[in-house]
Amino acid sequence: MSPILFALVMSLIGLIYVLITARAVLASDPGNATMQQISGAIREGAQAFLAQEYRVLVVFAIVVAVLIAIFIRWQTALSFLVGAFTSALTGFIGMSIATRANARTTAAAMKSLDAGLRVAFRSGSVMGMSVVSLGLLGVSALFFLFGMNREAVDAITGFSFGASAIALFARVGGGIYTKAADVGADLVGKVEAGIPEDDPRNPAVIADNVGDNVGDVAGMGADLYESYVGSIVAASAVAVVGAARGELSPSTVLLPFAIAGVGILASLIGAFMVRTRENASQADLLRSLRTAVWTASALVVPGIAALIALDGTIGWPIFFAILLGLAAGLLIAYFTEYFTSYTEKPTQGIARSAQTGVATLIIEGLAVGMRSTFAPVVVIVIAVIGAYLLGYNNVVDGRMGGVDGGLYAVSLAAVGMLSTLGVTLATDAYGPVADNAGGIAEMSHLPKEVRQRTDALDSLGNTTAATGKGFAIGSAVLTALGLIAAYAQTSGLRAEQLTLLDPKLLGALLIGAMLPFLFSAITMTAVGRAAMEIVNEVRRQFREIPGLMEGTARADYAQCVAISTRSALREMIVPGVLAVAAPLIVGIVLGPAPLAGLLVGATGSGFVLAVMMANAGGAWDNAKKFIETGELGGKGSANHKAAVVGDTVGDPFKDTSGPSLNILIKLMSVVALVFAPLFVQIGGLVR
Amino acid sequence: MSPILFALVMSLIGLIYVLITARAVLASDPGNATMQQISGAIREGAQAFLAQEYRVLVVFAIVVAVLIAIFIRWQTALSFLVGAFTSALTGFIGMSIATRANARTTAAAMKSLDAGLRVAFRSGSVMGMSVVSLGLLGVSALFFLFGMNREAVDAITGFSFGASAIALFARVGGGIYTKAADVGADLVGKVEAGIPEDDPRNPAVIADNVGDNVGDVAGMGADLYESYVGSIVAASAVAVVGAARGELSPSTVLLPFAIAGVGILASLIGAFMVRTRENASQADLLRSLRTAVWTASALVVPGIAALIALDGTIGWPIFFAILLGLAAGLLIAYFTEYFTSYTEKPTQGIARSAQTGVATLIIEGLAVGMRSTFAPVVVIVIAVIGAYLLGYNNVVDGRMGGVDGGLYAVSLAAVGMLSTLGVTLATDAYGPVADNAGGIAEMSHLPKEVRQRTDALDSLGNTTAATGKGFAIGSAVLTALGLIAAYAQTSGLRAEQLTLLDPKLLGALLIGAMLPFLFSAITMTAVGRAAMEIVNEVRRQFREIPGLMEGTARADYAQCVAISTRSALREMIVPGVLAVAAPLIVGIVLGPAPLAGLLVGATGSGFVLAVMMANAGGAWDNAKKFIETGELGGKGSANHKAAVVGDTVGDPFKDTSGPSLNILIKLMSVVALVFAPLFVQIGGLVR
Repeated sequence: MSPILFALVMSLIGLIYVLITARAVLASDPGNATMQQISGAIREGAQAFLAQEYRVLVVFAIVVAVLIAIFIRWQTALSFLVGAFTSALTGFIGMSIATRANARTTAAAMKSLDAGLRVAFRSGSVMGMSVVSLGLLGVSALFFLFGMNREAVDAITGFSFGASAIALFARVGGGIYTKAADVGADLVGKVEAGIPEDDPRNPAVIADNVGDNVGDVAGMGADLYESYVGSIVAASAVAVVGAARGELSPSTVLLPFAIAGVGILASLIGAFMVRTRENASQADLLRSLRTAVWTASALVVPGIAALIALDGTIGWPIFFAILLGLAAGLLIAYFTEYFTSYTEKPTQGIARSAQTGVATLIIEGLAVGMRSTFAPVVVIVIAVIGAYLLGYNNVVDGRMGGVDGGLYAVSLAAVGMLSTLGVTLATDAYGPVADNAGGIAEMSHLPKEVRQRTDALDSLGNTTAATGKGFAIGSAVLTALGLIAAYAQTSGLRAEQLTLLDPKLLGALLIGAMLPFLFSAITMTAVGRAAMEIVNEVRRQFREIPGLMEGTARADYAQCVAISTRSALREMIVPGVLAVAAPLIVGIVLGPAPLAGLLVGATGSGFVLAVMMANAGGAWDNAKKFIETGELGGKGSANHKAAVVGDTVGDPFKDTSGPSLNILIKLMSVVALVFAPLFVQIGGLVR
Repeated sequence: MSPILFALVMSLIGLIYVLITARAVLASDPGNATMQQISGAIREGAQAFLAQEYRVLVVFAIVVAVLIAIFIRWQTALSFLVGAFTSALTGFIGMSIATRANARTTAAAMKSLDAGLRVAFRSGSVMGMSVVSLGLLGVSALFFLFGMNREAVDAITGFSFGASAIALFARVGGGIYTKAADVGADLVGKVEAGIPEDDPRNPAVIADNVGDNVGDVAGMGADLYESYVGSIVAASAVAVVGAARGELSPSTVLLPFAIAGVGILASLIGAFMVRTRENASQADLLRSLRTAVWTASALVVPGIAALIALDGTIGWPIFFAILLGLAAGLLIAYFTEYFTSYTEKPTQGIARSAQTGVATLIIEGLAVGMRSTFAPVVVIVIAVIGAYLLGYNNVVDGRMGGVDGGLYAVSLAAVGMLSTLGVTLATDAYGPVADNAGGIAEMSHLPKEVRQRTDALDSLGNTTAATGKGFAIGSAVLTALGLIAAYAQTSGLRAEQLTLLDPKLLGALLIGAMLPFLFSAITMTAVGRAAMEIVNEVRRQFREIPGLMEGTARADYAQCVAISTRSALREMIVPGVLAVAAPLIVGIVLGPAPLAGLLVGATGSGFVLAVMMANAGGAWDNAKKFIETGELGGKGSANHKAAVVGDTVGDPFKDTSGPSLNILIKLMSVVALVFAPLFVQIGGLVR
């Protein structure tokens, strides 16, 4: 069977799983009237946000598509639109199922922990599998339609660009939304009014729960959709240039699609492994999710081996390069957990530093975040150098190997890392559902044991969220490097042009290293500004609605939702435009080789900054949770208050700015790849 | 007159100025017995610290010198020792005069503001002029002794290495010392015991004042000594390779020395411009210091033009490249002031964010720091690209220009930026003297108007400290780029070897981008650990010394000084070894070309991170001062308390980790340059 046909069949099987599982989730008990009402309010808010977000993005997408059609080709423009549309669609699917599964998870948790886990995880797997299935379906179908030649590969770079552009806005917009609502709800509700989290009297409580869905579900999904598609496109783009030069076997172009197909099958099987028993410990719950990931990883290895063996022209070193990528993903997840889990020393050290006050807790958190960058960087560097050397020395039938082989192996390592995304994303998208389920339990005044069960599920979600972020960053870096390699290949840039001795390249590299900082500054300030608006609105409602604090009057939730929506949409424009404009400006003004410098600089500093922010944020969050378990004075103590400040500082770090950097580096790389012909034609205005 | 002779004469004139000015400072009124006693205690503490620090460094220096003698050449080893010794000597001179000028500044301030300003600035100029004079004397004399040929240039790279190594330990050790004492004194004294700053009852008060001298005087001096020497060595190293290939005129090798000589003369004249009148406003005081810097800058331009004109073989484009460097330094200082001064919007915005609590103040400060990286990076990039293009297209007598000409122009831009260092460093080293003077006024219970005058002088010092840091970072980056260019030239690395397509170079670049984060994490944690020891000691003294709080018993200052000394020396080892070991390991394991990638990655991310940390720290400090002027509730309000936390977080940012990064990037570059022959010979263990 042709690899493309195989990929198409696998993605259709994935979509069938999505349909069946979604129906199964919807068929479960939706809970009592109150629960349904709350869930409905969250869904409405999330739908309203996505609808308005997509309305803005349609304009953006059409403008960009027209530009691509004029300056590049109509096929690329069409791919761009399909990529953008399917990215938005996966966000919509994920949000739709998550906002229906939340109350159903609460209802299931009324029966047992296992029932709750299953509903929540199933809904996560709907998201995970729709991302991989739609992504693979989209690129494979377009590649097939456009004739499976070099032009077809060029065209599907547009698909990756479309997915990337939507991902950026979804991540940034969703990230601002979720943290503005979260911080706003906490600052007035918890701190000023002294009411508990998820208390129905808090006017921002629905907006907060909406935020989990638009940020952590739709935003995260779009991010990884982009990585997934980008890695496949990058690998086939590198391969098609190498094959045209006779350096690579023609089947290398199709291998990434086939690997993705194998990965979908492995993920499907892994997803069936999730179950638990009543009174399961946190460790048991974590193990059940890990079993799913590890099963998928274990299955994908022989599958890829079979692909290599069946083809016969690709060479076994390539197989080991793919394994390097897969292993790197698992290792980064491991290190992320070490630095952010409160059972480990780093996070406990942050908690202990609360004893000398907020300042030392902040310093220690930043230091832990910075220290945690060492391991992921070394892991990625070993994977990149290792994969390259394998590919470089991979000689089959007297051809392959060399620079083309090396770059191809690096881009395939990214495909390998992301091959089991269907199930890893499921464990991640499960988190916000469990989080919402806890909120609904609280707001509908359910018995204490239900809340305990949802808390157990939620706490597990925090762990998977942290490791998921590490995985997202690592895969983004490998994907970006794959895209940069593809950019260099398709622009026909020779080694001596991409030299550090070129001051324009060096200068662009320095600017690239600065951009993630500027980008983070903009997104962090945006969260602060949006949160201030929520704070003012919540204060106004407490002041002007009589009986709100006593619980006799109902808060105007819709107003907070509307404010979050408006400000998130307003604030996502500047960073979004920056990310698209920066590579265009540098590519046109300084030329194609310096643009590669910009991309490398941004990837380097963006990688490190993203890991730092994600891990510092996760560690602060868990340092607070560590104290809440009763350590160091427990909840309400001075140490706890200091830890709450750390958690609040970490919120935009880990949920807005940090994750947005993943997309920044991928988006800039794919913009370079798509517009490469234009940059080569102009050749730089500054000579 | 030969340029080298000219340089030697100018540096001797500088040293004569140092002697005369030091005598003038010592001749002024040393104050009453109490003041002399306090000043004596500070001097003793600072001397003890430097003595112990240098004892550790002698061992380190001898070990490294032996390694250089074995693997490279004895001339380089000798230069290393001379560089290390003179660097330590400038630190000692600066500390000696500063700890004698502090009480004298207080005594002069009893007469008038102008008198106080003069004594403090004169002592700063002793530091500034001894840095440039000793630096230029050292490199010129060695260059002359070793025969003024290519081998001589190779040998004096050792001088730069020696200066750099001492600078790192001085910056890191001094930075840890000063912030551990400062944070420790504040946390227990100000926060727990509720006594004012500089109160004699605080057992850590002397250690705090010692810290200003060992950190901000000796540390800062060593840092800029390194930049100054490094820029000269880098430029002549680039020139000597180009001259040997017949691409550059032989006089290009000597030009950097001559420019430095002109700069000393211009700085001398500028230093005489500092005066003020009684009742001078903050703006007046700032203007008087700026007049000195601007006079020097204005004078250096015709001086350099004269050098170019007299030589006749160098070409005018080189002149404009030097001006670009000079202008870049002034611009970066301007932007630094904008982002950290409380008369401007960014810092006021941080202060206002205190209204929603500590968390938002921290987020806003980090965001301001990140945003402030944009302008300096763009300024440096324009200077680098501009200088390169000028040098590349600079054709004189049918030779010069091309890559050699471009790299030479970039390295000369660094020399241009640092040419007026004598006076810019004077305005910077003035700060800690004024700070100490205020402390002595407080501790000796002098009349209120004296404290007001010293406060005015101190506040000015904070502004010059912030701009000085911007200048230090900018010059460090240009110097590092010059050193990297020299490294690439002397290793004989061709353009196609230094390509981003080499995965080892790319991997090393990613590791380089990570190192500044790791390094900052280590130094920040070190400050925290050392501060904890001070906290415990101060708490112990308050507990165990009866009558201390009532002022009837005397605190055991020496104990706090001893603890700060011990922990700073202990904590400086790991980061110091890391900075030397990282380039050695990468150069030996991955080879010479990937090492260039490491250096570029570290320079890019180190630059941005250093600016971010320095400016965030400065802005937090001034946001607190803004509130202390009575804004937003003034001193003691909730907003002020939040701002104090921000200031404490910023302390290690701006005075330990941030500035240490300057040296990290220069030191790694110079290690590469010195050991280049070794790396080329081995050629990398991983092939």
